[in-house]
Amino acid sequence: MTEVKNKQVILRDYVTGFPKETDLKIVEGTIILNIPEGSNHVLLKNLYLSCDPFMRNLMNKKDGPKDTLSYTPGYALGGFGVSKVVESGDPKYKKGDLVWGFTQWEEYSLVPSPKILFKIEHTDVPLTYYTGILGMPGVTAYAGLYEVGSLKKGENVFVSAASGAVGQLVGQFAKLADCYVVGSAGTKEKVDLLKNKFGFDDGFNYKEEPDLNAALKRYFPEGIDVYFENVGGKTLDAVLLNMRVHGRIPACGMISQYNLTEHEGVTNLTSIIYKRIRIEGFNSSDYYHLYPKFLEFVLPHIREGKIVYVEDIAEGLENGPSALVGLFSGQNVGKQVLVVAHE
Amino acid sequence: MTEVKNKQVILRDYVTGFPKETDLKIVEGTIILNIPEGSNHVLLKNLYLSCDPFMRNLMNKKDGPKDTLSYTPGYALGGFGVSKVVESGDPKYKKGDLVWGFTQWEEYSLVPSPKILFKIEHTDVPLTYYTGILGMPGVTAYAGLYEVGSLKKGENVFVSAASGAVGQLVGQFAKLADCYVVGSAGTKEKVDLLKNKFGFDDGFNYKEEPDLNAALKRYFPEGIDVYFENVGGKTLDAVLLNMRVHGRIPACGMISQYNLTEHEGVTNLTSIIYKRIRIEGFNSSDYYHLYPKFLEFVLPHIREGKIVYVEDIAEGLENGPSALVGLFSGQNVGKQVLVVAHE
Repeated sequence: MTEVKNKQVILRDYVTGFPKETDLKIVEGTIILNIPEGSNHVLLKNLYLSCDPFMRNLMNKKDGPKDTLSYTPGYALGGFGVSKVVESGDPKYKKGDLVWGFTQWEEYSLVPSPKILFKIEHTDVPLTYYTGILGMPGVTAYAGLYEVGSLKKGENVFVSAASGAVGQLVGQFAKLADCYVVGSAGTKEKVDLLKNKFGFDDGFNYKEEPDLNAALKRYFPEGIDVYFENVGGKTLDAVLLNMRVHGRIPACGMISQYNLTEHEGVTNLTSIIYKRIRIEGFNSSDYYHLYPKFLEFVLPHIREGKIVYVEDIAEGLENGPSALVGLFSGQNVGKQVLVVAHE
Repeated sequence: MTEVKNKQVILRDYVTGFPKETDLKIVEGTIILNIPEGSNHVLLKNLYLSCDPFMRNLMNKKDGPKDTLSYTPGYALGGFGVSKVVESGDPKYKKGDLVWGFTQWEEYSLVPSPKILFKIEHTDVPLTYYTGILGMPGVTAYAGLYEVGSLKKGENVFVSAASGAVGQLVGQFAKLADCYVVGSAGTKEKVDLLKNKFGFDDGFNYKEEPDLNAALKRYFPEGIDVYFENVGGKTLDAVLLNMRVHGRIPACGMISQYNLTEHEGVTNLTSIIYKRIRIEGFNSSDYYHLYPKFLEFVLPHIREGKIVYVEDIAEGLENGPSALVGLFSGQNVGKQVLVVAHE
């Protein structure tokens, strides 16, 4: 039995309001680099961890309905990541395999085999992509637009948090469907990315728009068919006034609300009635059966350079807290990745 | 050419806030009881008019997106009704036919033929039913539950405005699908109807519940699968906290909001994300292709007394303003009908 040091990022205590770096803590534990006798667990060396907005919700104290989950204070965070198999109790995986799925924020993790979502078969693209365009955010953008959002060719699409892990893909996928696409983001640099790197038709900095309703009317004089919802709150409220009849709102996240102790009230929901709008919350977990089809769609576009993916890469577990916390003030430019080890 | 008197209910001026009887006015005009040469219009003698919550929205000044409609001050209100054909410029209809569809609040109306939705074929049931269970509200309840709400056998169903034109049917249809059904209404008398006449499993008076969230937790300890939304505002906010994962909210109306100059803010929309909830606004206009199938479903149940329908009948056009305005303070018990003439 080999025991090694195992650095971890743990939750210090449940979080109220905006998370701070000090809500998380780096600790050094140890781990035995062997699978327990008879276990079908898999021992992973974590390479790249994904910083995702939903992780904020897992920092809340669990006191709601039984179907909500939380992190446990004193234990490592969980999240999506790319890992290398060190040893496997499940014959589906063998030493050296690269995989992506749900792992822990630490150097090595012993995980139940079903937490691994997919073996990585294509390594001619950056491995970090499996935390983003080729991972959960990719499936989210794809399923959100096409399945939940029933996107049709040539429609008017608005996406918030548009330069983020999911948003940048939503815009590019919608452009492939000949849609008119506008995104909002929180800095000039991000808006420039939308227009100059991701090929959006237009973009705006929501922080510089005193009247979001007026801004949306300017960019969508004919109204919005599909709003890909990442932020909630005031943006959603303004969007509702600008949706077209039979518009769809695939709701992937509401990051503007996650850190508020009192959520903003959304006042324009009667638009749902008047304009027969569909809002549907979703996450990738209901859509992984589409993953093979999604890879077939997206890999050629990546290889041909027709779809690009911007990542914001932090190096080292000890930078995990700042990388994760930074998401909630929009410090990341593109998909926030945390490197634990380069293989 | 025969010219006759034609009493009308007109909108005096656009309405802000709660409508008052004085916002409407009875006037006596005249109408020529012949179809103009070459017109395919149909001349109708109106029998029964339907008082519907959506009519409030048509009293607003039109200043929103181009797809919203309004009544024109000085002209008769429009709405659903049952009428008898006096003369027809469209060969589909002939003198004496009974029809239901969109007509005007007056004794006689000359309407474009497509405004008529259906010829009435079954007259062994009360004709007034074609403003309710066999008309728009019936199609609304049916399509809302089965199409928009994807109702499955045995699910937990909550309906607001539950003794109303649509609500009483939602509950009864859901019971036919072996669902657990609870409704809310605004008086003891209405709650008694839910439990003793319509066969709901339970019901409560929302005006007597200081904490709607607690009330819903009491009636739905396992959560709600389908919430049939008729009222919006605080009720919707509490419901969101009590929905189950993959719950559906067919949104038919938000009557609690229609008369407010500032809408209530709904603060629990992040539940849509956490629980992957679908909210979908709809109205019957997208579902009339189901009408024959719906009649096949509902007529036998009516004839066998397995579905009942409670109507609140006001007599005479001059009582139209009070009947319509009463809807918004919940004065009607059951479907509010206005009798213009008994054939």
